[in-house]
Amino acid sequence: MLKQRHDLDVVFHALADPHRRLIVERLTRGSATVSDLADPLPMSMPAVLQHIQVLEKSGLVRSRKVGRVRTCSIEIKALRPVERWIEQRRTGWERRLDRLGVYLAEDDG
Amino acid sequence: MLKQRHDLDVVFHALADPHRRLIVERLTRGSATVSDLADPLPMSMPAVLQHIQVLEKSGLVRSRKVGRVRTCSIEIKALRPVERWIEQRRTGWERRLDRLGVYLAEDDG
Repeated sequence: MLKQRHDLDVVFHALADPHRRLIVERLTRGSATVSDLADPLPMSMPAVLQHIQVLEKSGLVRSRKVGRVRTCSIEIKALRPVERWIEQRRTGWERRLDRLGVYLAEDDG
Repeated sequence: MLKQRHDLDVVFHALADPHRRLIVERLTRGSATVSDLADPLPMSMPAVLQHIQVLEKSGLVRSRKVGRVRTCSIEIKALRPVERWIEQRRTGWERRLDRLGVYLAEDDG
């Protein structure tokens, strides 16, 4: 339960930054080196590396260094807890609407 | 485009806190007064009000004051940009897997 809550915290936090979302968007189209990822971003390399570190801690990205080149890839399954949380909220809300509908229909009849 | 990016920033940020998620979970089951929302939370009333303010700024919650009682309700549609963003990432990733599958099948044949 606590683990799940922590996962949600770190994934939602990781995705709250537009540059980190750009990195995730890029990686869903295929793995990329850190230089490739840094190329379109308006910031210094240390700033890019910090963003990648936040993404790695959230489990959304993993990276591997071969020689001097670090390559990143996406871990799409790390999105699952966030997807599930949103689905559950929507379901909860729709159930409530259904109950309201039944109540209003009964009130009408 | 910039507006959309800002929406994603503030909604992801709002949901990165477990207590704010608890408030959203509660409100998907029905509107609630600020006191009702504060009741299960292990924090002072000013802290609760700050969380509600973050949720209101994100568009996920709206509130109305009648007399001395403030009542909050969910705006489920504010989740939509976040749902769409996640769906798009999953679709992008699945397309990439499909292309990889085609490539590997061709390579095999």
